[in-house]
Amino acid sequence: MKFRGTVTIWLKEGIFDPQGAAVKGSLETMGFREVEKVRIGKSIVISLEAQGVEEAGKMLEEMAGKLLANPVTEAYRIDVEEEKAGADR
Amino acid sequence: MKFRGTVTIWLKEGIFDPQGAAVKGSLETMGFREVEKVRIGKSIVISLEAQGVEEAGKMLEEMAGKLLANPVTEAYRIDVEEEKAGADR
Repeated sequence: MKFRGTVTIWLKEGIFDPQGAAVKGSLETMGFREVEKVRIGKSIVISLEAQGVEEAGKMLEEMAGKLLANPVTEAYRIDVEEEKAGADR
Repeated sequence: MKFRGTVTIWLKEGIFDPQGAAVKGSLETMGFREVEKVRIGKSIVISLEAQGVEEAGKMLEEMAGKLLANPVTEAYRIDVEEEKAGADR
C-alpha cells in the first residue's frame, strides 16, 4: 500500500524565528497591521510503501527524529494518509 | 477575534525540487528504500486579528498571492482556524 506522510516542522516556541520576523515586517509594510505573529516551518511530504498506516507512521517518526528535524531546536508533527491512486500534487 | 492561518506552499508538480531530492537520497542512504518521492514546502503560520473567519481567509489569500508564494513556480493552500485562548505553538 502507498502512503503519503506529511512531516511539519517548526522552530520550538521561544526560539527566535528570523525568517518569520522578516515576513511579519514585510506584511506590515504592505499594510497588514492585523498580523501579530508569523512562524515559518517546513512541510515535508513523503510518499512511501508500507504494509499499513501503523508501519508508515513508525517509519516517518524515525525519519523525522533521525534526519528531518533537529530535536534541540525544532518540534514536529506527523500526518499519514493512504495515497489514492491517480491523486498527485 | 484572533485567527491562526496556515499557508502551506509547495513547488508546483513538475518543477524539480532539489531539496526534496537531496532528502530522498539521504533517507535511502539511511536504509529507507520504501521512499518513492519527497517534496519539501513551507508552512507559514500567521496569527492575526479579523472580524470573522471569512475576513481572515481573504487577508491570508492576499498575503499568499502577493508576498508569500511565487505564483509562477509555487502552489499554496490556506487553512484558517479560530485561535483558542492560551493555545500556543
